[in-house]
Amino acid sequence: MGLCVRNIPRADASVIDALQGFGVATVHEAQGRIGLLASHLRPIFRPAKIAGSAVTCEVAPGDNWMLHVAVEQCRPGDVLVVAPTSPCEDGYFGDLLATSLQAHGVRGLIIDAGVRDVAELTEMGFPVWSKAIFAQGTVKETVGNVNLPLVCAGALIHPGDVIVADDDGVCVVRRGDAAAVAEKARKREANETDKRARLAAGELGLDIYDMRARLAEKGLRWVDEA
Amino acid sequence: MGLCVRNIPRADASVIDALQGFGVATVHEAQGRIGLLASHLRPIFRPAKIAGSAVTCEVAPGDNWMLHVAVEQCRPGDVLVVAPTSPCEDGYFGDLLATSLQAHGVRGLIIDAGVRDVAELTEMGFPVWSKAIFAQGTVKETVGNVNLPLVCAGALIHPGDVIVADDDGVCVVRRGDAAAVAEKARKREANETDKRARLAAGELGLDIYDMRARLAEKGLRWVDEA
Amino acid sequence: MGLCVRNIPRADASVIDALQGFGVATVHEAQGRIGLLASHLRPIFRPAKIAGSAVTCEVAPGDNWMLHVAVEQCRPGDVLVVAPTSPCEDGYFGDLLATSLQAHGVRGLIIDAGVRDVAELTEMGFPVWSKAIFAQGTVKETVGNVNLPLVCAGALIHPGDVIVADDDGVCVVRRGDAAAVAEKARKREANETDKRARLAAGELGLDIYDMRARLAEKGLRWVDEA
Amino acid sequence: MGLCVRNIPRADASVIDALQGFGVATVHEAQGRIGLLASHLRPIFRPAKIAGSAVTCEVAPGDNWMLHVAVEQCRPGDVLVVAPTSPCEDGYFGDLLATSLQAHGVRGLIIDAGVRDVAELTEMGFPVWSKAIFAQGTVKETVGNVNLPLVCAGALIHPGDVIVADDDGVCVVRRGDAAAVAEKARKREANETDKRARLAAGELGLDIYDMRARLAEKGLRWVDEA
Amino acid sequence: MGLCVRNIPRADASVIDALQGFGVATVHEAQGRIGLLASHLRPIFRPAKIAGSAVTCEVAPGDNWMLHVAVEQCRPGDVLVVAPTSPCEDGYFGDLLATSLQAHGVRGLIIDAGVRDVAELTEMGFPVWSKAIFAQGTVKETVGNVNLPLVCAGALIHPGDVIVADDDGVCVVRRGDAAAVAEKARKREANETDKRARLAAGELGLDIYDMRARLAEKGLRWVDEA
Amino acid sequence: MGLCVRNIPRADASVIDALQGFGVATVHEAQGRIGLLASHLRPIFRPAKIAGSAVTCEVAPGDNWMLHVAVEQCRPGDVLVVAPTSPCEDGYFGDLLATSLQAHGVRGLIIDAGVRDVAELTEMGFPVWSKAIFAQGTVKETVGNVNLPLVCAGALIHPGDVIVADDDGVCVVRRGDAAAVAEKARKREANETDKRARLAAGELGLDIYDMRARLAEKGLRWVDEA
Repeated sequence: MGLCVRNIPRADASVIDALQGFGVATVHEAQGRIGLLASHLRPIFRPAKIAGSAVTCEVAPGDNWMLHVAVEQCRPGDVLVVAPTSPCEDGYFGDLLATSLQAHGVRGLIIDAGVRDVAELTEMGFPVWSKAIFAQGTVKETVGNVNLPLVCAGALIHPGDVIVADDDGVCVVRRGDAAAVAEKARKREANETDKRARLAAGELGLDIYDMRARLAEKGLRWVDEA
Repeated sequence: MGLCVRNIPRADASVIDALQGFGVATVHEAQGRIGLLASHLRPIFRPAKIAGSAVTCEVAPGDNWMLHVAVEQCRPGDVLVVAPTSPCEDGYFGDLLATSLQAHGVRGLIIDAGVRDVAELTEMGFPVWSKAIFAQGTVKETVGNVNLPLVCAGALIHPGDVIVADDDGVCVVRRGDAAAVAEKARKREANETDKRARLAAGELGLDIYDMRARLAEKGLRWVDEA
Repeated sequence: MGLCVRNIPRADASVIDALQGFGVATVHEAQGRIGLLASHLRPIFRPAKIAGSAVTCEVAPGDNWMLHVAVEQCRPGDVLVVAPTSPCEDGYFGDLLATSLQAHGVRGLIIDAGVRDVAELTEMGFPVWSKAIFAQGTVKETVGNVNLPLVCAGALIHPGDVIVADDDGVCVVRRGDAAAVAEKARKREANETDKRARLAAGELGLDIYDMRARLAEKGLRWVDEA
Repeated sequence: MGLCVRNIPRADASVIDALQGFGVATVHEAQGRIGLLASHLRPIFRPAKIAGSAVTCEVAPGDNWMLHVAVEQCRPGDVLVVAPTSPCEDGYFGDLLATSLQAHGVRGLIIDAGVRDVAELTEMGFPVWSKAIFAQGTVKETVGNVNLPLVCAGALIHPGDVIVADDDGVCVVRRGDAAAVAEKARKREANETDKRARLAAGELGLDIYDMRARLAEKGLRWVDEA
Repeated sequence: MGLCVRNIPRADASVIDALQGFGVATVHEAQGRIGLLASHLRPIFRPAKIAGSAVTCEVAPGDNWMLHVAVEQCRPGDVLVVAPTSPCEDGYFGDLLATSLQAHGVRGLIIDAGVRDVAELTEMGFPVWSKAIFAQGTVKETVGNVNLPLVCAGALIHPGDVIVADDDGVCVVRRGDAAAVAEKARKREANETDKRARLAAGELGLDIYDMRARLAEKGLRWVDEA
Repeated sequence: MGLCVRNIPRADASVIDALQGFGVATVHEAQGRIGLLASHLRPIFRPAKIAGSAVTCEVAPGDNWMLHVAVEQCRPGDVLVVAPTSPCEDGYFGDLLATSLQAHGVRGLIIDAGVRDVAELTEMGFPVWSKAIFAQGTVKETVGNVNLPLVCAGALIHPGDVIVADDDGVCVVRRGDAAAVAEKARKREANETDKRARLAAGELGLDIYDMRARLAEKGLRWVDEA
């Protein structure tokens, strides 16, 4: 009833690193405002900023058995993405599993559930984005799936998709789109540099983006305080 | 259908600075336990402590157009207060708008919605109290209102009211009450200094505030563990 | 209608200190995965790690009068545990009460409600686990109970039980079980040291815990990406 | 510290009745998409549909004393609007208070907190929109305000404003705008009758509202399934 | 690791039936405003009104195995009370288990988790108070406890305690207190009959309860609208 | 930037009708406990039970323009499935759109957002499963997608997939799996008939499913109340 898929494809490492540099907000915009995981996923420490290839892992509520199966499929540069089959905030993950993932070069964990040992994870510098911090222990009774597509925090993720995560949250980029998105992100960032300088100098967005006429057309009126 | 009011009145700068010094809890108490915004507004970094005159901005869900209109109305010492017309956690605000506000001397942002680029905002030292951290981009299609009274996180705010915000949350003080509230806050704080010293020395609140008789009257009994 | 019980028994100080050392996740596991308070209780600053004897305090919504009654019952090494009789997030507790508790040697506060003055509490190093940070002031009109058993954040707590709290949350250990739980926690931790080393060296949990056969029995299959 | 304002003005009864007939969605649209209370206010039974003049009542958390003060200020055709000074879901209101309000001709209750005796209220046909159904009893210790403006479920309400409530929720109309809003609602409803008939006959909104060109302009493309 | 306790004591049937008649709000008040389960427990159909002896059942998240164990311990007149060891909203219970409980004379189910087949349960007239309606299936892998004390929706429940549930929610009465609480509830109800008649006749609570002087003492002032 | 796909494939009508007959819980189990949408989607009236082919519609927050585009793609027997690109509870849908959908033979609406006019929808017998009931009006400014795959309430839905919805919630069945799932559901239901009869006769699940030995193996012990 469970499946573990081996040897999934990954995106190019240089593209992944480029996406990591741009961060979540820029990547999300660059690919047309899609791909965000829900805002209830929060980093256990800040700042944190990673990107990597998704190894996906679907688990039963209160059962972390499949995480051990998933570790074996991880390669350096991967990000483990875990979603329970129904809402759960148990502590699926702690410092032992983090030690194991770190030993295999995994860059971080995205989990739509709970984690524990967050003081230790913080000391280790192992970044986690989770729904909850909760020490509740789990069992090892029910198998699930590794490296099948899954929905995590409202976003569809295929194994090998690129995960970008930072203080703003988590974003997924389709593996096949990663290079193009990185290129668009680069242009977006270049474009923003000039804007930032003008705004820092006190110029108004109203003027830089030439908004006044269109605002008036839509019915905006300016009046003085009576 | 949208209105932007210019040249709103502000409270006296020295009163605003005094209120900033006292902080949210003291100001809230000093004005009779009113004026708090809901506790779901949290600072994106801590510690943070500001006060300023409210420039209010009402926005459509998922549409940050009016923020650009609001920037033009801000003066040094202001605090921008943003509320959507229906619940939304999109990322209305990021480092570019923060750069613009900072260039105009704005002290911080209060927003009953989401923000992004929080790592950059933290580096810039631009304080924000928000409902969510979420990278979701917004559109620029619908006009709203700037400097009309609005309800933000459950509190009524008039343009020019004084906003006080710190690690405890956000409080609003009516412009016309600001000087009197500052004076009451000063007295309250003076009074607390003595109390703090007595409590630090081990005296009990029960004795300092003479509570024992009234507690007994209300039916409290002390018994020893059987 | 209210009762304050004096001279409750406490667990042995050395046992309490041992439990503090192990932390919440280990203690929770050691006693059979029980005793956690709900995950909505979060520390106001991190890192924080305490253990102590519970002095329990049941309060009316929006009424912090009984906290003053509870302070008198606290001894060095205690932890104050506060629960409202119905859900409330008001700021029952601030720097004055913290000063008082600190003067009496109390190690921290667990409260299924709100606290305020968190910047000051952070500077004082007085740890608090709360449901909310909210400056809302409270009244002193209704008596409650001190040192009766209560349910706090979903967990039953008797006065004198041992409270363990750290960045992962809060756990309660029955006073009568404390020594045995500490011993089990010690064994668990010892056992984990070896596991951690093997995992750090790259060995898989699948092999260390000999999981492959049982996974296959339960129906897990490994396949290669097509 | 508390104030009870007597003899507040009301809107014209015929205007109120007209607004009741149109219902919440139509009234909300007619006045420019403003005035809704938050969606967490739900009717305790359905269908229910009322309109009336707001008598406002601000209460302390867990304290229903002021409801008795408010009853005296109610006249036939009024709607009682209750908001706590901080979030609370206690059962402020039950069948005795409903009996009292019904005896004074009050049309219903809007409360951003809890109610109880809902089986009896349903039998009595006394409609309530509340945040929770909860039997938790309240005390009578702290005074509040009657007939001062307040924020209830995120909306500012002045005493004498018109409250419209039905299965869709609750809407407030400023007293001074009530007649004009009723007139606009009448026109909106008339306009919808024709639209409804055309839609029922199978005509598309795309054609009725002539949307195709503007959709294409905004970039929408139609393609056939490959 | 699991325990099932047989032959628990029950309260007297006539007392249980009396408590059922009074309902949740009255019983809760009669025993001093204690014993309510959290308001997130809602009946799957209304009206519903039961009382019975608690058979308690603690389950793992997503695992309904112990419900079968609990059925065997149920006798006519019992109410099954189920709580997961960590938050879960899976559908632990459906029409088959309801058929089984109904065959054994069980009056209803209280579950701090999810249920399914609610259309069938409604047709069967089998009342359930639950946290969620959710079809998610569960496994049968982990043992728990039957008839040990547990915390359900924030309330401590011992096996054999009396559960009272109606449209207002759920209340627990200690078995040893049940007769006394029933008697107090009877007096309370008798007292309310007179009050209800006076209120129905238009008398004010302000006068019936003689509140005016005490309100004034606490600082309430009446003023006329300016 | 938006796409509307025409002429999507549908599953066989007889299979869809069969799935409707089985209902959500049985279908969910028959396909291996997958496919449920989150439990926050609730029917606006009960009972309600439908199945149909998904026409998917992705909308901007607070913008219902694309619903008009989607209506044109609907055929008799379809179910419209709507998801916003970020969380929103505005009232995207009311009686006019329902009239239009009903005129085109659509069986119901699934929307991870709000709806209004629920009294009218109830009278019309047009079933809706939604996240909220909220009258908040929406704009028509931003295009989205029709008949692209989307995630709705945590579940991935392709256009043409079969949606089954009843009082228990909503389930999706892949179009290609529909016939096989219907067959498995038929067998499951047949199997349950016998079980139901035995349970109704008082037989225990413990015996019918032969659970005692395995429970004991897992460590369950039965003891008598001391």
